[in-house]
Amino acid sequence: MDITNNLRKLTASLGDVKYRRRSGCFKAEGTKCVLDTIKHFELEYLFATPEWLEVHSGLSVNEKAVAVTKADLIKMSSLSTAPGVIAVYRMPVYGLEPESLRGSLTVALDGVQDPGNLGTVIRTADWFGVRNILCSRDTVDVYSPKVIQATMGAISRVRVHYCDLSETLIKLKGMPVYGTFLDGGNIYDEPLSDTGIIVMGNEGKGISGSVARIITDRLYIPPYPADAETSESLNVGVATAITLAEFRRRCI
Amino acid sequence: MDITNNLRKLTASLGDVKYRRRSGCFKAEGTKCVLDTIKHFELEYLFATPEWLEVHSGLSVNEKAVAVTKADLIKMSSLSTAPGVIAVYRMPVYGLEPESLRGSLTVALDGVQDPGNLGTVIRTADWFGVRNILCSRDTVDVYSPKVIQATMGAISRVRVHYCDLSETLIKLKGMPVYGTFLDGGNIYDEPLSDTGIIVMGNEGKGISGSVARIITDRLYIPPYPADAETSESLNVGVATAITLAEFRRRCI
Repeated sequence: MDITNNLRKLTASLGDVKYRRRSGCFKAEGTKCVLDTIKHFELEYLFATPEWLEVHSGLSVNEKAVAVTKADLIKMSSLSTAPGVIAVYRMPVYGLEPESLRGSLTVALDGVQDPGNLGTVIRTADWFGVRNILCSRDTVDVYSPKVIQATMGAISRVRVHYCDLSETLIKLKGMPVYGTFLDGGNIYDEPLSDTGIIVMGNEGKGISGSVARIITDRLYIPPYPADAETSESLNVGVATAITLAEFRRRCI
Repeated sequence: MDITNNLRKLTASLGDVKYRRRSGCFKAEGTKCVLDTIKHFELEYLFATPEWLEVHSGLSVNEKAVAVTKADLIKMSSLSTAPGVIAVYRMPVYGLEPESLRGSLTVALDGVQDPGNLGTVIRTADWFGVRNILCSRDTVDVYSPKVIQATMGAISRVRVHYCDLSETLIKLKGMPVYGTFLDGGNIYDEPLSDTGIIVMGNEGKGISGSVARIITDRLYIPPYPADAETSESLNVGVATAITLAEFRRRCI
């Protein structure tokens, strides 16, 4: 199968959220990223050099494989270093039944903007056995190539749902909804449940007013020493990680 | 003071490690980053629009201030969005006396490559009261504009020292040297000291062989559940954060 100019353009355009939404597709770039995801998403195309396809002939992608040149891959890539392979997948449609979250621990992101931060949160959630992440509609798109890359394969195991966050949290009434705030209670002293929602806010503005009103348990990660003059805050990926680690340490 | 073409070129070139080393200078970009750092480093130049200088006249930078146009700032910036201000500082010379580290907790980075990761580690170290970070010589340069940006001001409070890591650790004989490994002991069960070195490795390869030999306490951050099929690892910034949080929780 030969690559047409159209296919090359379509794949390049998947770096842009507008074209991802229009086509319902996204891409994974690079050998590790493709091998981590290829069994978990519906493959549309696999663009690779003939050498790559030869080495990975065991993948049996058959008619989905398109042999391309290194120059083609450079044109189609959204990364600064062009990969040896690009997979184009159909976006999964998970459907979110809020009730299904009642028995587990879920992370909710309220307006996280940085692709690296979202990717890191997904990777960390995976490590700590969180299977669902809720994202407010103004959170960065999870199918951005940079996010996919930063998840290091965890995108195959964690379901990310975009929704009206306040509305969804209200439907989960009765469950504890945790959030970190500068005036929250010390996370090491507060009771933590192994079922609930942990809300993390935007990098600069934190948790929005409408979501903050629904939080039932306000937490704080104490600096050291407690009265130190420190950075004003922790990075959102770091705060999520410390919070999840503490929930899991406590609930083992 | 009018900006010359030379100054514009010099400032732009500080995005490149080679020119930083040659000039002994680095830059901070953007209002927050400049205000967070200006009292802590020796200022060479402060480039800003006349409006910015007017609003921040209280800084009393006098003859160091250079009024420039927005177009100048775009040319001098290393960020994707040009800032309203760029400060050029002289790199501090700290001098490292390994013996001075004996009474405290220190982080050591062995080959960390990503500027965002290094910035996040510095920010997190600051939050947890770590005042010194040792970096192997192949760790990314701390004076990269992206690192400075990601520290969110913490670069003013944490001293970063580049050194031969094995050599420096050997000089600290008698202190516990911690590292995270897949076959390490569960961090929640192991004894942790409030004085020691915590070594974190390269994003892909982990801790190098020569440094691994000096580690006295091998730690592991357990996933949840313990037997889960998860990501192979945590992001280095995240692993540092969870480790530091646990050291500080234990030692309060």
